[in-house]
Amino acid sequence: MGRGSPLASPMNLICTGTIGIDTIETPGNDRREHLLGGSGVYFAAASSFYTTSRLVAAVGDDFPSEFLDTIKSFEGVDVEGLEIRQGSKTFRWGGKYLDDMDRRETLFTELGVLEEAPPEIPDSYKDSEIVFLANSHPAIQLDMLSQLDRRTLAVADTMDLWIGIAKDELTTLLGKVDGLVLNFDEAELFTGHRNPVTAGRKLLEHGPRFVVVKKGEHGCILVHRDGLAALPAYPTERVVDPTGAGDSFAGGLMGRLADRSSDDPGSFESVRDALAHGTVVASFNVESFSLERLRGISKQDIQTRFADYASMTRIG
Amino acid sequence: MGRGSPLASPMNLICTGTIGIDTIETPGNDRREHLLGGSGVYFAAASSFYTTSRLVAAVGDDFPSEFLDTIKSFEGVDVEGLEIRQGSKTFRWGGKYLDDMDRRETLFTELGVLEEAPPEIPDSYKDSEIVFLANSHPAIQLDMLSQLDRRTLAVADTMDLWIGIAKDELTTLLGKVDGLVLNFDEAELFTGHRNPVTAGRKLLEHGPRFVVVKKGEHGCILVHRDGLAALPAYPTERVVDPTGAGDSFAGGLMGRLADRSSDDPGSFESVRDALAHGTVVASFNVESFSLERLRGISKQDIQTRFADYASMTRIG
Repeated sequence: MGRGSPLASPMNLICTGTIGIDTIETPGNDRREHLLGGSGVYFAAASSFYTTSRLVAAVGDDFPSEFLDTIKSFEGVDVEGLEIRQGSKTFRWGGKYLDDMDRRETLFTELGVLEEAPPEIPDSYKDSEIVFLANSHPAIQLDMLSQLDRRTLAVADTMDLWIGIAKDELTTLLGKVDGLVLNFDEAELFTGHRNPVTAGRKLLEHGPRFVVVKKGEHGCILVHRDGLAALPAYPTERVVDPTGAGDSFAGGLMGRLADRSSDDPGSFESVRDALAHGTVVASFNVESFSLERLRGISKQDIQTRFADYASMTRIG
Repeated sequence: MGRGSPLASPMNLICTGTIGIDTIETPGNDRREHLLGGSGVYFAAASSFYTTSRLVAAVGDDFPSEFLDTIKSFEGVDVEGLEIRQGSKTFRWGGKYLDDMDRRETLFTELGVLEEAPPEIPDSYKDSEIVFLANSHPAIQLDMLSQLDRRTLAVADTMDLWIGIAKDELTTLLGKVDGLVLNFDEAELFTGHRNPVTAGRKLLEHGPRFVVVKKGEHGCILVHRDGLAALPAYPTERVVDPTGAGDSFAGGLMGRLADRSSDDPGSFESVRDALAHGTVVASFNVESFSLERLRGISKQDIQTRFADYASMTRIG
């Protein structure tokens, strides 16, 4: 898990995303309300094990101070770009997982601050080299990206909603980012192809160098201009709450890319290497609600599980 | 891909299974009739790239001589145990794949010779050390196994039908084999647990040292008394006909175990190593109907793809 070069310093990592207050229902567990969540929070916490993670997101004045403390408890998370907006309400989301934990339905959505102007990117963040645009309207992702002209690598997430109602803007975005991460069913929805390799290749035609197709408990597939890679999920019996699995996966992935400081963090070799880190961090995240599990682990715990994972998937 | 020891000779591999005449409908392709199929045929062809494979199976007197020639064209397949039964009909099966190629429905089944007494195991096969009991009624599997008392390792396959109507006999079988391979949904059906690791552990309670849970396009999980392993499928766009994927996977797996001649072919390390070989051989098989693809490849083709696969799934 060493860096590409012992002399290189990590690249600056920025993430734009959401911060939310979640209600989660899981098949095997009680309903949990008032949980810290949101794509930006999961991403920032996960990536903070690798590098300093600059979080750009907005909350309302109802945002509990203990949640802010939780975010700050991750040493690597930089909260200068976290905007507490007076008179606004924090985004709230409720989700219910069905029997197989891989499918969920939305119970409610209160957009709150997400319906207002997006958060500002602080000037001190403008030199960020590694950019992750967590799921939001592609027009906002495009706007954020346009403010970060020093970037070396930009990767976006998206979701079925935007594929449905903002496909043109999403296609424009694909022409401006280096990579896209999205779920298996979203890749099919976008391209009409269920085979993840075929779907990935179709998405590459719009511009990015690589697409990571996330398959949840079945792992992920990397479709890169320069090669294919496939990884299983970390085999675990302890799936308590899958919320944030994709964002913490992206966090481990992008954190590793920033920390490793490759000359070309978007190369096939760099991304393939980083996939396993995303997988391992995400495997911790699903073991409890909210950030409860990530809060309780150290980099050493990640390294230990990484070694287990490498052993479990060794070939030849 | 070398053997455990260059001095060891391969162990004797025997497979009991079916030989059939298949009709296949796939979403992207025309209906194909009069195809050579059956669990034993796919297994024997796949394992023959690694070692000599003794095939015990019966057909009727309607079995086409060109199909026999096809089986014999695999140099490593020993057909002494292939019984051509006068006055009997060969097993026939028709299957239709649905859109996602991972689900299929049975169009028709004509059991023919499968309704009669099982084939005899030739005396010359009685010293077989590595045994694969392809899917059939667990009572037949038990009977076959009882005739092979020199075995070092016995592995069984099964299917949802037997879990439904012969679970007691299947449970007895589990107490007498070293390993079980079965599909993801069958593991859930047997144990009531959808998580493949949990389901695998439950199955281990009945006696085997290991369970391989097959997830089709999503790869496989090994639940062994001594450890866990997980592998993705070989990422491919060329899935023409998934028929025989599980049997050719098992063939590559067991062929490798026999060829490698480990002191303990059922150890965690041995089985984990062999999983990747099963994966690669199965990835060829699905690229065409029947044995068409396996007939056209060499051991060198398998080695080349094995190297690709190892590279695609490399961690760290």
